[in-house]
Amino acid sequence: MGILCLLRPSGIIRNMQNKGGVTMRIHELGEFGLIDRLAARLGEPDESVVVGIGDDAAVVQYAPDMQVVTTTDMLVEGVHFRRDTIDDRSLGYKSLAVSISDIAAMGGRAKHAVLSLAIPVDLDVERLDELYIGVQEICTEYGTHVVGGDVVKTSGPFVISVTVLGVVEAGKALLRSGARPGDLIYLTGTVGGSAAGLDLLEQGQGLAATLSEQQKADLLRFHQRPAPQVPGGRILLQSGGCTSANDVSDGVASELNEISKMSGVQLVVEAGKLPIHDSVRAYAALRGQDPLQWALFGGEDYQLIGTLDPAKRAEIEADFAKAGLALTIIGHAEAGAGVVLLQDGTRRELRPKGFNHFGS
Amino acid sequence: MGILCLLRPSGIIRNMQNKGGVTMRIHELGEFGLIDRLAARLGEPDESVVVGIGDDAAVVQYAPDMQVVTTTDMLVEGVHFRRDTIDDRSLGYKSLAVSISDIAAMGGRAKHAVLSLAIPVDLDVERLDELYIGVQEICTEYGTHVVGGDVVKTSGPFVISVTVLGVVEAGKALLRSGARPGDLIYLTGTVGGSAAGLDLLEQGQGLAATLSEQQKADLLRFHQRPAPQVPGGRILLQSGGCTSANDVSDGVASELNEISKMSGVQLVVEAGKLPIHDSVRAYAALRGQDPLQWALFGGEDYQLIGTLDPAKRAEIEADFAKAGLALTIIGHAEAGAGVVLLQDGTRRELRPKGFNHFGS
Repeated sequence: MGILCLLRPSGIIRNMQNKGGVTMRIHELGEFGLIDRLAARLGEPDESVVVGIGDDAAVVQYAPDMQVVTTTDMLVEGVHFRRDTIDDRSLGYKSLAVSISDIAAMGGRAKHAVLSLAIPVDLDVERLDELYIGVQEICTEYGTHVVGGDVVKTSGPFVISVTVLGVVEAGKALLRSGARPGDLIYLTGTVGGSAAGLDLLEQGQGLAATLSEQQKADLLRFHQRPAPQVPGGRILLQSGGCTSANDVSDGVASELNEISKMSGVQLVVEAGKLPIHDSVRAYAALRGQDPLQWALFGGEDYQLIGTLDPAKRAEIEADFAKAGLALTIIGHAEAGAGVVLLQDGTRRELRPKGFNHFGS
Repeated sequence: MGILCLLRPSGIIRNMQNKGGVTMRIHELGEFGLIDRLAARLGEPDESVVVGIGDDAAVVQYAPDMQVVTTTDMLVEGVHFRRDTIDDRSLGYKSLAVSISDIAAMGGRAKHAVLSLAIPVDLDVERLDELYIGVQEICTEYGTHVVGGDVVKTSGPFVISVTVLGVVEAGKALLRSGARPGDLIYLTGTVGGSAAGLDLLEQGQGLAATLSEQQKADLLRFHQRPAPQVPGGRILLQSGGCTSANDVSDGVASELNEISKMSGVQLVVEAGKLPIHDSVRAYAALRGQDPLQWALFGGEDYQLIGTLDPAKRAEIEADFAKAGLALTIIGHAEAGAGVVLLQDGTRRELRPKGFNHFGS
């Protein structure tokens, strides 16, 4: 390894020529040229990086009472991202955001990342430069350091594989399995924004002129630059009153079903309490869509959702307010199974990807 | 995350039907069916796995005086492996071997792995079953536990991304940068076997009948089932006399050039001392090839190479012998730069991928 190292001979992208001023393809840059170019985009490591880029493996040091949290995600062009809905800089940002959010959902801090790329040989080098600028932006914001990776060529689509290592106080990680009857369901920030932003990019170009610049910026940011809720996760962990946590990657409905199943409780959500951003409501009205659908099933919001001990509610809410972070109580846990949505006096079973009407 | 989790909605492979008795394609199995099927291939974790498969991220616990070593590799079908030169079970084995070998080259022990796959939708499920059997085989041998991963679909070739986390005593990791003039160059095991095995698979079918079953098995094993030198790395680290280490992924010549550059010494290798397996020599004779070429430039042998303090030579050799492991002294370090090959009284500069005749 090393950053982008350990290319096996068959994977080496040869030819060290550089054509100044002209858009360069990867194969024109060469393996080591590419490594140097990408490594230069990354910031200086902190003291937790004992051995970083350039040896067989990276060595990182954590405090004795800390556990290491690790998570990984793979993104394929054409499946998980498309060039017409995300720019390369935001793609770099979001590629790490997805994994940092998993660390946040454990209550941890994201400390180190490794980043592997399978690169089509005709990819413009400038796309990688932009990608790494985005990677470095989120690393700077979250105190995360890229300590290695691999770069290989592929005959297929661009593939990004990210692994993030974080730390959490020993024995304190927030799990999906601790919700108890009587607990309250919390949700950080707002949801539905990523789906609304994607809808705007895919379908809403004709409506874009009707939105304010701020509204457009909000929607694009929700989709392209989700903010992992590490500070919120830290407050929840430190409160000692958080009984379960998930990040909203697959959608509120999906995450709640997971917590319900893993904890063995029924979760009851009040539709009217789901926090939806004003810009999302405004766009939904223009599109003639119900924003609740985006909020429940859209996913990729990367907020935290879970349950907390009602005795700790006031303290947690105060700590969120003090940190300038939003937290909303959207329901509660009961004895039983599954997830129930309360809306306009009706009770519907909320499935991961839709509704199931009781008695029907 | 979770094993193979965090499929974003767009990445989910749908359809939960299972057609018993007929070869199944991935899309017929469904996301959760696939996850259950693959997770069942993996062994039980040990006490270092605090949270394994099934939450947002895995949590692992290391002893206080231990540093965490991490490395990652990405393998693309058609670039790094081909179905006609490696079976899927060996592919699973080798995919982890490559990264475990990086941990060995730091003197560490490989403890945990995450494994992400980008899967063509028409891939046979049985290929993944075989892959995971191979993964579990090497995990059992090395005490490594798969604690998570991601499975996504792709329109392109099969991609395997592996990240391995290991532990090493704080401050003791073996680096590439510590070689000093007067040190001896060591090499574990034998080299050239992987290149010979690949040659047999690609070119040597007509000669296979001339080889003994044992010779064929040796060559295939060298290429398809390389053995990461974790025990040898541990002996080298514990001796306190190992001044540099690399694993032979890109070839002896390439690894020595890296150590020379990172340490600021000249490395002098005696061609006649390079350890080459008898089966490799026998096959090279049949092919009319010089086995030294495979030994120097073949790569993928995953042996350890580096330098040691001559005062520790006897102790290290005794410990290797006691453990039933091979270690050969193949040269020494001098003041200067670059790598020199001594052969039949001539001195040639050994470049990563070839020779440079002095004075020519």
